[in-house]
Amino acid sequence: MKIDGTPYRSVWVDADGWSVRILDQTRLPWQLDILRLTEAAQVAEAIRSMQVRGAPLIGAVAAYGVALALRADASTEALERAIALLGATRPTAINLGWALGRMRARLHNLPPAERVAAAYAEALAIADDDAETCRRIGAHGLPLLQEIQARKPAERVNVLTHCNAGWLATVDYGTALSPIYQAHDAGIPVHVWVDETRPRNQGAALTAFELGKHGVPHTVIADNAGGHLMQHGEVDLCIVGTDRVTRRGDVANKIGTYLKALAARDNGVPFWVALPHSTIDWQVGDGVAEIPIEARGAAEVTDLTGRTADGRIETVRVAAEGSPAANPAFDVTPARLVTGLITERGRCEASEAGLRGLYADAP
Amino acid sequence: MKIDGTPYRSVWVDADGWSVRILDQTRLPWQLDILRLTEAAQVAEAIRSMQVRGAPLIGAVAAYGVALALRADASTEALERAIALLGATRPTAINLGWALGRMRARLHNLPPAERVAAAYAEALAIADDDAETCRRIGAHGLPLLQEIQARKPAERVNVLTHCNAGWLATVDYGTALSPIYQAHDAGIPVHVWVDETRPRNQGAALTAFELGKHGVPHTVIADNAGGHLMQHGEVDLCIVGTDRVTRRGDVANKIGTYLKALAARDNGVPFWVALPHSTIDWQVGDGVAEIPIEARGAAEVTDLTGRTADGRIETVRVAAEGSPAANPAFDVTPARLVTGLITERGRCEASEAGLRGLYADAP
Repeated sequence: MKIDGTPYRSVWVDADGWSVRILDQTRLPWQLDILRLTEAAQVAEAIRSMQVRGAPLIGAVAAYGVALALRADASTEALERAIALLGATRPTAINLGWALGRMRARLHNLPPAERVAAAYAEALAIADDDAETCRRIGAHGLPLLQEIQARKPAERVNVLTHCNAGWLATVDYGTALSPIYQAHDAGIPVHVWVDETRPRNQGAALTAFELGKHGVPHTVIADNAGGHLMQHGEVDLCIVGTDRVTRRGDVANKIGTYLKALAARDNGVPFWVALPHSTIDWQVGDGVAEIPIEARGAAEVTDLTGRTADGRIETVRVAAEGSPAANPAFDVTPARLVTGLITERGRCEASEAGLRGLYADAP
Repeated sequence: MKIDGTPYRSVWVDADGWSVRILDQTRLPWQLDILRLTEAAQVAEAIRSMQVRGAPLIGAVAAYGVALALRADASTEALERAIALLGATRPTAINLGWALGRMRARLHNLPPAERVAAAYAEALAIADDDAETCRRIGAHGLPLLQEIQARKPAERVNVLTHCNAGWLATVDYGTALSPIYQAHDAGIPVHVWVDETRPRNQGAALTAFELGKHGVPHTVIADNAGGHLMQHGEVDLCIVGTDRVTRRGDVANKIGTYLKALAARDNGVPFWVALPHSTIDWQVGDGVAEIPIEARGAAEVTDLTGRTADGRIETVRVAAEGSPAANPAFDVTPARLVTGLITERGRCEASEAGLRGLYADAP
């Protein structure tokens, strides 16, 4: 996707042929800082600190982290150390483990001398696959917006989304935002309600940034506002991304997603979840009971970073002095609240039968 | 209630016998600024800008605003002008109209020469009534916490609240927080999950401040987190305040309340609403259709004020540059999601029958 006319992916290999470039997402929307990563430990820290985030993207970046590790030491021990280091950075998104598993499967049985080139090739394949997967998710989600437009041709199509599941969360195009971009490009008058997505404000900072750069009409709202908008007919459709979908269709996503799904159900608003195959966890059935939920630092809740009117970046405490905070980063939306899933292979019910219908070849 | 050992109310008459003192709630929790109001126009601006907020409190402060107006001009025209000015400041809370109606009823038929003294006396009576009303709300809410403690004597009692319905939102004691203070003072190990309450952060700023000053254990959370906590058994009880309750028991309260009520229902968590009689709107039946919802400025969503590590108060933009924002300040929780109401006369079902059972004498 483009930023001010220049096409970007969210991760790429530098012109030097080996170092890895990312956009520092902790600096967006205020600054477009491009970081250069040269070691696996740097990659791990970039994932942990959320300079890169978004389940599909951290899978692709971790794959490049393996390539960087092997460049320093191509032994099997180094491969396993890198996989362990990168896999321990974030617990909830399943794509991380999926991408590292794919790297291991490709590299483990190769002679060390062949591993570096193969690792770069496999990481690029993961990135390319993710971009193409996201493009297809958009194509399969597009009819949902077309149907709404056909029902009310004179009005805008209002979509609510939570957090950032756009191109910044993937390698390109996005998951939840991919159908929105395709609808906008096809001339559908789509308007997006952007949940600001506390505590890290990825909606207000990243989704609003993305949509603004692409020219998609949107309005930022407090996370609290979505239920009220749905009560008053202002939301036609919810689409969110996900960090892990269980084989039964339970959906782990950014904290607060569950509340929007409840409001959608209470108001008859369709609630769709967009995901690539790499987000499905076939090992897990009950998402609420089984998916590990990352507990992040209290400062993400008590303190906020933004830009002053005169252009300085400042961090301010917003909570009362001395008050502790808790910061569960994800919640699980039970499958019963999900209208359906949008994948690169098409749409399906959020259920084991639905997923197996699309992925009969899955393990 | 006390701040650092000194007892405060949230509004009082100065030692000069006529000017009105308030705590500037837009400066809390960082600074304890006590403002002196000397004219009705100043009072109107203090309400509009939310230097004072909270449905019961703005009623009491508006009453003092009438007294200040009459001090300048005690004519019937001036009385009506002041009531119109003050009544137009905020649309959703019904207590404002209630308090101004009470002032009119007391003052309209008095000779102008007697109005100033009567206005101060009536405003004080409104304030005293509110404090006593809130104390009683606490007494009637306390058994809810005692019952939970009796069920699990070795564990803490976890209460979730949204926004600030503490003593800062009333003249003293609070509505939703009044039972919590009484429980804490009675030795019940109560712990409060404090929704930060975007966009104005009255939870993180005011409720956390109040609870901290009173020594009540609490944890600030993003508004997004409550559903997840309820899914995992971490919330025993929700108690919130309200700006207007319809005669059928629909509850207008700070935006986001509805989402928490949905999560409470989905997880079998009791959801109680605490209110004084002055918050009941006997004229309105269907809250979602009929209660006017205040639309506040976009900057409350896109910008945030807080304190830097070195003590400066700064306002920072957190949303992407150029992205618009919408800011509905309240939502309506349908009575079907409310376990019950806690009033100064006792607890009742959130229904016309429930309310009439306690208020058979209401108009």
